[in-house]
Amino acid sequence: KNMLFFNKKEKEEVEEPQNKELRTKPLSGFMELLPAEQIVFNKMLETIRRSYERFGFIPMDNPVLERAEVLLAKAGGETEKQIYQLKKGDTELAMRFDLTVPLARYVAENWRELAFPFKRYAIGKVYRGERAQAGRFREFYQCDIDVIGNEKLDFRFDAEIPSIIYTVFKELGFGKFTIQINNRKIFNGLFAGLEVSEKSKEIMQSIDRLEKIGVENVKKELEDLKLSSSVVEQILNFIQLKGSNLEILEGLEKLEIKDVKFEEGIKDLKEVVSMIKQFGVSESNFKIDLSIARGLDYYTGTVYETRLDEYPEIGSVCSGGRYDDLASQYTDKRLPGVGISIGLTRLFDQLIKKEVIKVGSATLTKVLILPMTENFELSLDLATKLREKGTSTEVSFDIEAKMDKRLGYANKLGIPFVVFIGPDEISKGVYTLKNMLTGEQEELNEEALLEKIK
Amino acid sequence: KNMLFFNKKEKEEVEEPQNKELRTKPLSGFMELLPAEQIVFNKMLETIRRSYERFGFIPMDNPVLERAEVLLAKAGGETEKQIYQLKKGDTELAMRFDLTVPLARYVAENWRELAFPFKRYAIGKVYRGERAQAGRFREFYQCDIDVIGNEKLDFRFDAEIPSIIYTVFKELGFGKFTIQINNRKIFNGLFAGLEVSEKSKEIMQSIDRLEKIGVENVKKELEDLKLSSSVVEQILNFIQLKGSNLEILEGLEKLEIKDVKFEEGIKDLKEVVSMIKQFGVSESNFKIDLSIARGLDYYTGTVYETRLDEYPEIGSVCSGGRYDDLASQYTDKRLPGVGISIGLTRLFDQLIKKEVIKVGSATLTKVLILPMTENFELSLDLATKLREKGTSTEVSFDIEAKMDKRLGYANKLGIPFVVFIGPDEISKGVYTLKNMLTGEQEELNEEALLEKIK
Repeated sequence: KNMLFFNKKEKEEVEEPQNKELRTKPLSGFMELLPAEQIVFNKMLETIRRSYERFGFIPMDNPVLERAEVLLAKAGGETEKQIYQLKKGDTELAMRFDLTVPLARYVAENWRELAFPFKRYAIGKVYRGERAQAGRFREFYQCDIDVIGNEKLDFRFDAEIPSIIYTVFKELGFGKFTIQINNRKIFNGLFAGLEVSEKSKEIMQSIDRLEKIGVENVKKELEDLKLSSSVVEQILNFIQLKGSNLEILEGLEKLEIKDVKFEEGIKDLKEVVSMIKQFGVSESNFKIDLSIARGLDYYTGTVYETRLDEYPEIGSVCSGGRYDDLASQYTDKRLPGVGISIGLTRLFDQLIKKEVIKVGSATLTKVLILPMTENFELSLDLATKLREKGTSTEVSFDIEAKMDKRLGYANKLGIPFVVFIGPDEISKGVYTLKNMLTGEQEELNEEALLEKIK
Repeated sequence: KNMLFFNKKEKEEVEEPQNKELRTKPLSGFMELLPAEQIVFNKMLETIRRSYERFGFIPMDNPVLERAEVLLAKAGGETEKQIYQLKKGDTELAMRFDLTVPLARYVAENWRELAFPFKRYAIGKVYRGERAQAGRFREFYQCDIDVIGNEKLDFRFDAEIPSIIYTVFKELGFGKFTIQINNRKIFNGLFAGLEVSEKSKEIMQSIDRLEKIGVENVKKELEDLKLSSSVVEQILNFIQLKGSNLEILEGLEKLEIKDVKFEEGIKDLKEVVSMIKQFGVSESNFKIDLSIARGLDYYTGTVYETRLDEYPEIGSVCSGGRYDDLASQYTDKRLPGVGISIGLTRLFDQLIKKEVIKVGSATLTKVLILPMTENFELSLDLATKLREKGTSTEVSFDIEAKMDKRLGYANKLGIPFVVFIGPDEISKGVYTLKNMLTGEQEELNEEALLEKIK
C-alpha cells in the first residue's frame, strides 16, 4: 500500500482522459500523498526543521513568485528553460526554482536590519518544469540552511555544516551515511597547474557525472574536450585518489603541484577535516572525496555531498558548499556564505519506493470516543480534557450507525484507543477503554484513563 | 520597528527602480517578513496547526499548480480574473486560489482510500492577482479544516466547528472574540416566503456587505434590485433582529413564515446552538447573527464568521460553513461537508499594524557560546549537549573580533544567555554564564549550567 499517486503513470507523457469530465489526478511530476504517507513526510520535515533550529538558524519564508528579471539574473542554461514564467498585467513573473536566489535578494534588500553572520533556514516548494520522468519532480521541497557573512565569513562554519548534516541524518534514521567533502580550490589549482583552466567548467561537469556514468565515460568526455591524454590521465588519477582522510591529504601534498590555490585548498581542507572531529561528527561518517565537484560555478571553497551507505543509487541526499559572494547581481556588498540543501521530496519518494520508509496509521488521532446514547456531555467533556493534555481526540457522532461501522473507522485509520461511553458508563461514572491493537478492554475512571493514554 | 516590507509603498501601483540594477523588494502584495516577525508568524501558524491536529484532522498538502481546467471549473466572476495562469508545453496551468478546490479534486480521486467522515487540515499559500491595495495580498496563507461525509454528514459536526474556532482563538490569545452563526436555509426560506428567490444571490451579496457599507447603503442596493419597499423593509428588519440567542430564535419563530426551508433552518440553528454549549464553548463567545450570509453559492446550511471584539474593523478572521456537495464537478458521488478557513497572512498583517502582535527576539537561539581561545573543544562539546536537550545554541567562531562586537551579535538578535569559555574556565572546569537581560553573571559547572538554562 505504499502508493504514491504520481507514480501510477509516471512513464507516460500523455495522460488518458478518464470517464469523469475532469481529470482528478494531480499533474505529473507533482507529488500528492495519501494521509498515511503525508504524516511520515511531515515528520521528516519537522525533524529537519528542529535540527536546523537547534543550530540557531532563523526561519525565512520568501514568496514563491518573483519578478522574472530577478530569477533570470541568476539562472542560465538548463535551469532557465525549466522556469515557470507567467505574466500578470504588465509584470513578467516567475516561480522560484530554488531557495537561494530569493535569499540573495532578501539579504541584499535587508542587510542593514540583519545581524551577521546571518544564519537562516528555509523549507519550501520550488518549481522546475523538467521533462516528466520517474523520480523527477516539477514541484518539490527544498530544506536549506545558509550562513552568510558580511564581507567575510569564518572558515569554521565550513566545519560546522557537516555537524548539522550529521545531526539531521542521525535523527532521520535511515542507517549509515557518509558526508563527502572536497574543496574547489584544489580543482582550480589542479586545472591551473595542468594549464586547462579555461575548460574547468566543462571538466567539472564531467567529473560530477562520475558516479552516474562511470570512469570510462568520464574519460571519453574529457577526451572530447580535446585535453591531452596525459592531462586526462592526471585528472582521472587525481579524482580517484583513495584511502583514509589522512592518506588522501598526504597523497595531495605529494603531488607537489606548485599552485597557490591548490596549496590553499589543501590547507583549508585539512583544517576543516580536523575541526569536523571536534564538532562531534564520528570519523566513520565523513570522508574526503576528490571527485566531488558540484558543477555549479557558484561554489568556491568547501563542497559537500551526502550519501546513504545502504542506498548509494539514490545519489547525494544533501549537498552544498562555500561561495564567495551570494548576491553580486543585487548588491555591491560582498556576502560570502556556506550552505546546504536537502531535496526532501525526492528523498522521500526514493525511500518509500525502497520500502525503507514504512507508513503507519493514516491519522494523528490517538483516541476515538464512542458515545452510545444521545447524551454527549460526558464524551465531549472527556474529549476536551484529552485535547488539553495534547492528545489528538475525535468523537464519533454517528450514534445511529452500527458498532461495526463505527469501529471500522478507527480500524481503517489506525486509531490506537477507543473509549465507549454508554448508559452503564454514565451511571457508574467510568469509561470503557479498548486498546485496538491488543483488543484488551478495561473499565477505568477518568484519572486512570488520562494517565493510561498519556 | 514593526516594519513589513510590503507596506513601504503599498499605495503606489508603479514602483520606482532603485539605484541597484535589480529591484530587490518582493513584489507588491507578497508578504516577506524580517526574522523577528517571521518567528511570531510561525508561532501563530503552529498554534493553529496544533489545535487542528488535536481535533483529529489529518494533514494534507496539495500542489500549488493545477490544470487550468480544474481550477476554472469551480471559479467564476471576480475569482477567475484573479487566477495566475501559465502555460508549460501544451498544458494550461493555474496557481490555486484556495485550498478547497484541490481538496475537492483530491477526495474525488481518492475516496476509495479514505475513511469517512474525512477530516483534513491544510495550511498553505494561495494566489489571487488582485489589484494591489493596502491590506490585500496576492500570495497568502490559508489555514483550512473540512469534514467531508460520504453521501451524508452528521449535523453535529456543524456544532463541533465552533469549538475548534474557540480553541484556536483562545490559544492565539488576541482577546475576546465572537463566533457568529447563521443558517442559509433561513435566508432561502425567507426569500421564498417573500417571493424573491430568483434574486437571492444578489440580495445575499448585499447583505454580506452590511458591515462594510452600513444599513443605508444595503437598503439602496436592495432597492436597486427592484425589490418592493415592503420586501426591502422585511429583509432589513430580519437581518437586524437582535437579542440573546434565545430571543433571536423566538423572534424567528414569531415571524410565522410558512416555508419548509425556513422552518428547517430554524430547527437546525436551534440544535446547533444548543450543542455548541455542550462542546465547551462559552456562551459569551458565540452569537446568532442573521446578517451573516457568506455570499458564495457554495454554502447550504450553517455559516460562520468570527470577529475579534476589540478589533471589529478587521472583519471576519475565520469563516466557513456547511455545503451540500464538495466535488460535483469531479465526481457523481455526493460529498457533503463543513469547513472553515483562517486567512493567516491578512490577520497577522492587521494585528502587527495595530501593534497587537509585538515582535520579540530575531532568533530562536537561547544560548550563544563564546570561546575566548583557539581551543574550541569544550565549547563545541557544550553546544552539542545543549542541542541534545533541545536548546537552540550557537557558537561564536570569530575569536579574533572584539568582545563588544561578539556580544553585539547576541544583543542585536536578542539571545538571552551567553556562555564565556576562556583559559580560566577551561582550567577550572567551569562556565561563565551571562544573563543578557539582567546582566547577571555567574560561574557554574556543567550540570548546574544545563539545569539553569533548561
